[in-house]
Amino acid sequence: MITLHDIQAARERISAHVRHTPMLDLPNTLTDLPYHLRLKLENAQVVGSFKPRGVFNTLLQMDNETRTRGVVAASGGNHGLALAYAAKRLSVPATVFLPESATSDRVARVQAWGAEVIRVGANWNDTHAQATAYAAEHGLPYVHPFDADKTLAGQGTLGLEILEDTPDVDCILIAIGGGGLIAGMALALKTLKPDIRIIGIEPTGAASMKAAVDAGRVVDLPVVNTIADTLAPRAVSDLTLALTQQYVDEIVLVSDSAMVEGMRWLWKNTNQLVEPSGAAAVAAIQTGAVDVTGYACPVALVCGGNAAADSVFEAYAAAAKN
Amino acid sequence: MITLHDIQAARERISAHVRHTPMLDLPNTLTDLPYHLRLKLENAQVVGSFKPRGVFNTLLQMDNETRTRGVVAASGGNHGLALAYAAKRLSVPATVFLPESATSDRVARVQAWGAEVIRVGANWNDTHAQATAYAAEHGLPYVHPFDADKTLAGQGTLGLEILEDTPDVDCILIAIGGGGLIAGMALALKTLKPDIRIIGIEPTGAASMKAAVDAGRVVDLPVVNTIADTLAPRAVSDLTLALTQQYVDEIVLVSDSAMVEGMRWLWKNTNQLVEPSGAAAVAAIQTGAVDVTGYACPVALVCGGNAAADSVFEAYAAAAKN
Repeated sequence: MITLHDIQAARERISAHVRHTPMLDLPNTLTDLPYHLRLKLENAQVVGSFKPRGVFNTLLQMDNETRTRGVVAASGGNHGLALAYAAKRLSVPATVFLPESATSDRVARVQAWGAEVIRVGANWNDTHAQATAYAAEHGLPYVHPFDADKTLAGQGTLGLEILEDTPDVDCILIAIGGGGLIAGMALALKTLKPDIRIIGIEPTGAASMKAAVDAGRVVDLPVVNTIADTLAPRAVSDLTLALTQQYVDEIVLVSDSAMVEGMRWLWKNTNQLVEPSGAAAVAAIQTGAVDVTGYACPVALVCGGNAAADSVFEAYAAAAKN
Repeated sequence: MITLHDIQAARERISAHVRHTPMLDLPNTLTDLPYHLRLKLENAQVVGSFKPRGVFNTLLQMDNETRTRGVVAASGGNHGLALAYAAKRLSVPATVFLPESATSDRVARVQAWGAEVIRVGANWNDTHAQATAYAAEHGLPYVHPFDADKTLAGQGTLGLEILEDTPDVDCILIAIGGGGLIAGMALALKTLKPDIRIIGIEPTGAASMKAAVDAGRVVDLPVVNTIADTLAPRAVSDLTLALTQQYVDEIVLVSDSAMVEGMRWLWKNTNQLVEPSGAAAVAAIQTGAVDVTGYACPVALVCGGNAAADSVFEAYAAAAKN
């Protein structure tokens, strides 16, 4: 099991490769909220999500000979994008398996960093199975998006960064997909500040961590049904469940439409365009699923910003006059 | 003529009403650029541009009786949006004149803050004429977007903020519409740091400041032709021209398509979705119109983010599964 020390070492290891992202203050005088909220804009991370933290922490610990042969990942989108980006920066070949349902926007983004994309599988778990088989067959390292110590330690660096940005933080909202982000962050945050309240947010249509916590074991959801494609694995892992059980205080659910409203709110109030998962924490506040009024310094993590925005650029390009 | 003291006083006056926006570091290891660039993300200002700085500085100096009757502005979009927002916060009625060409997105944004919108005029100057006539007829204060000392002093606060964020700044790129932003900022920056290089960026299709500087007097362009609707007045003012002549080192032009490429670059590299004007400074670097390689600490100002993004939210809303 990883420790705070692993996360601190990860932070040093990856510091030249990722951004220290901005913390945006929203005093209640500047929004329609009745309290002062802070937003950690991890959507402004390189390639638009927290994922490069875990990926760089993994790739930088591989010996050069291993990684030079190439690395493999399966991804709802952001982990694969992070792998493609990190591989490009480290001059390593990358193969990214995406579900057949991945939007063309996500495919193009991964390809833009030079990775080979293979689209296969009806959902992340199917895609993951094919990708691990491919990696084994070719003798290449498979970089897991959440069920791996080095990934978790990398994601945990975001907890350290938030404590540095906002030492008074006493409540934090974090979206859950496979649970790697919240597991790493919660370990870091609770170890350094045991009284902090940590709230996980899942889509109602892919509540794999809630199901696991309720059942006391990893549960394989029969179906996932959400637009938050980056929060949609059918099952979490023993590792992320164990850390969640130990460190996360509460898990709440948000609907797709609440996430879209959260996206609109973030755009209106902060001009940040984010994907549904990036708006999940804000959506939980807005729907009342989470009440942060009792906290002195609540922070909502905006974990990813890779919305499908091509239509915007195409419209402006078509309107260009010179 | 305003002084540094006016800008410093403005900063104190408006501080509770605007955000200190993030400065995003882009070391060359994190982009495809050969040098370390910094981006001032003023697109994350309240209502998505620098405009509230000047508007709040103006409204907060009106006596309550005057402003309670209502305030008026004409705008390509962002100034009107700022007036609507500030008026809402200060419980003042606002009437915003927008050109007939204003996109429905801009109209809806202004209306969302409770202002009355009047669409009239083929371009900003026509709209401005109608709005000033309306204000005079009704005895209401007209808040000019750039040809007013209090507006300029407010915009100048962005110069103070950048010097505080990045004391080593030695070159800064600033988009020009009517010139209020660059005039106020250049006054602040050059007074405090005379060696800083200040570069203005205009659309090729609305180069009213370049024309004025070349002619040595304000020039009324026969036509403006650009998608950067917030940079498109047909003429600057004597006030902004004089400050530009005194403090701005160089003006360069960018095409619409270069601004769209700049928008794409900002989205790919920083996940910031901005309007064309917000990408003008970056576009000037990317096209080679400006070469910042000789500078130790160049800063590009991202002055506005109000891109027409409704299509994105509509697509996600349509795809929502619950």
